[in-house]
Amino acid sequence: MDERIHEHAAVLVDWSARIDPGDNVVVSVAEGAHELGVAVAEAVGERGGELLAVNNAAELSRAYLQGRAASDTDFADPPAHELAMLEAADVYLGLGGGRNTAATADVPPETRQAARRGQAEVREARLATDWVSTVHPTRSLAQQAGMSFEAYQEFVYDAVLRDWESLAEEMAQLKRILDTGSTVHIETPTTDLRLSITGRTAVNSTASVADDSHNLPSGEVFTAPADANGTVSFDLPRTVDGTRLEGVTLTIENNEVVDYAADQGEATLGELLETDDGASRLGELGIGMNHGIDRITDRILFDEKMAETVHLAIGRAYDACLPGGEAGNGSAIHVDLLADMRADSRLTVDGEVIQRNGIFRWENEFTEEPAD
Amino acid sequence: MDERIHEHAAVLVDWSARIDPGDNVVVSVAEGAHELGVAVAEAVGERGGELLAVNNAAELSRAYLQGRAASDTDFADPPAHELAMLEAADVYLGLGGGRNTAATADVPPETRQAARRGQAEVREARLATDWVSTVHPTRSLAQQAGMSFEAYQEFVYDAVLRDWESLAEEMAQLKRILDTGSTVHIETPTTDLRLSITGRTAVNSTASVADDSHNLPSGEVFTAPADANGTVSFDLPRTVDGTRLEGVTLTIENNEVVDYAADQGEATLGELLETDDGASRLGELGIGMNHGIDRITDRILFDEKMAETVHLAIGRAYDACLPGGEAGNGSAIHVDLLADMRADSRLTVDGEVIQRNGIFRWENEFTEEPAD
Repeated sequence: MDERIHEHAAVLVDWSARIDPGDNVVVSVAEGAHELGVAVAEAVGERGGELLAVNNAAELSRAYLQGRAASDTDFADPPAHELAMLEAADVYLGLGGGRNTAATADVPPETRQAARRGQAEVREARLATDWVSTVHPTRSLAQQAGMSFEAYQEFVYDAVLRDWESLAEEMAQLKRILDTGSTVHIETPTTDLRLSITGRTAVNSTASVADDSHNLPSGEVFTAPADANGTVSFDLPRTVDGTRLEGVTLTIENNEVVDYAADQGEATLGELLETDDGASRLGELGIGMNHGIDRITDRILFDEKMAETVHLAIGRAYDACLPGGEAGNGSAIHVDLLADMRADSRLTVDGEVIQRNGIFRWENEFTEEPAD
Repeated sequence: MDERIHEHAAVLVDWSARIDPGDNVVVSVAEGAHELGVAVAEAVGERGGELLAVNNAAELSRAYLQGRAASDTDFADPPAHELAMLEAADVYLGLGGGRNTAATADVPPETRQAARRGQAEVREARLATDWVSTVHPTRSLAQQAGMSFEAYQEFVYDAVLRDWESLAEEMAQLKRILDTGSTVHIETPTTDLRLSITGRTAVNSTASVADDSHNLPSGEVFTAPADANGTVSFDLPRTVDGTRLEGVTLTIENNEVVDYAADQGEATLGELLETDDGASRLGELGIGMNHGIDRITDRILFDEKMAETVHLAIGRAYDACLPGGEAGNGSAIHVDLLADMRADSRLTVDGEVIQRNGIFRWENEFTEEPAD
């Protein structure tokens, strides 16, 4: 087996999930993630965890949902066996990576929604564990990213096999700046946006349950802006519900999108902004800090963590950014849009430049440059 | 997908497991049984069952056990999440069929045993459900059977896709004869054995939980002899713990094997007989009645159900054959040995011939023959 798979498993159980002897561990294995499943099973065993492996093949889910849709039964009651399993679990590791990313494409949306509603308690029980989601590089994901399998494997392992401890420390610096800061100013040749973050709490997304961060890879610091004014261009593409958005520009006044444009997908963008009241306000400012991610693969789990990028989400804000139960922006949507910060850019907090051209002030390249 | 896989799934959920709407169903899927898993998932959905699919890949189990063996932890406590899942389950469907029947060959026996001891409560909880084990034909099983994949698929589906209702009725006839009978006499050119079955209860193994029968395929009627005298030859081969037994002959006096011989594996046979006191006494008389099974594949799940064969087990008797808590033969082993009844044979109960040359008296071929 590729040694990187064992390293991935070790990061997952040690850094991310912090598995201790006696932990009851559920490992959910997608159809194409068998090899990672084997490596994780071994690692869980070595740490003295109790393993229960769940089959998460998309083709099984599809067949089951098609069958249920053809039956006369509804999804009213949560499945007692799955609920009992999760309530007794300490850790839930989701190993994604299917053999066909479109495997469930023909499940009727109403069946999918009904099943999701019936699974609400199951989802809550899962989120109450020390859960971590990760992804095993498969040929189908490589295809979706428009990459060869080998290149995609390298891409995923570069993103996952970081020195997380040192990255977490670096991200903590940025978190401190955002936690105490009042105004973020983002400048690029096509962006001039000011965001108010007074009183908001930034989340240090370190890919570890110890920091309440549940995705591997991770590597971003994000907060929830309270106000926004200016113009912002998102020069990195994003596919939302099957529609590609490219070259999006938003004009924001008093925390409200008052004008928008897109080189591609403008109609879809308009529909998204009109979903509800909160859909035309910003719910997140995120700053990517994972230098292992060096390209857009149109999978937001990776894209939003990419170093030298910034993303803003229209829609719902995360509770973790709202201390003391403060109400953040509410919406049925949360759509991240990405801006490239590599060239001619500045990120300023309360007048102090913290990043220039994608490089933070604590990075060598930055301190060697003359002050502006 | 091969239509036979859907038929297999339908027999499993309807005839064998009797799944009702709302049943909490655990489906355990071996590494090579994905296609059957998909068909079973759909069938469970159609019946309105709640599906939880468990990953039962042998390579995961191996890796986990190797990992645990390398850790400092023991298997003292049963895994709470697995126990909770099974205690809340109504039905457990085990879909066997790996990609390598030797996948766990290098797990140290002591680790395997320790894990098995730690899993005792889990096993009990599983056996308390309406559980059914079946097998999906895989290339590795075909190889083990010495058959091409296509021929092995046909073999498995011939065994599984029976008219179970009619077979169950036929088997019920034999059960009635054995339940009320006192002495079974088995005669072939090399066998002359009398078994006392007074007061014992025969099990009608119909592959349905409704008859407390948990294997698909099934198709045998078995009971527990109380006494045995005579000589018996087992002309069909059997592999036990990696050793092939061929041409076994046992001489039995007052329910005790007093002499034995084998063309192949005689030393292993001797060791088996010396395991404990009960190992040299018979624990089971089984009569195969599945006409879909027409050859020995050295997999006892199939072999012992083969029509026109009889098997006897040395060792432990099944409780189901012992009414009123009567003590049957006890032993750490239960090793089935098979005799071919196709030629020059007679099976007689209390002086009445019920089978001649493998054909029962209620089958056409039999009644057309002149009485002996």
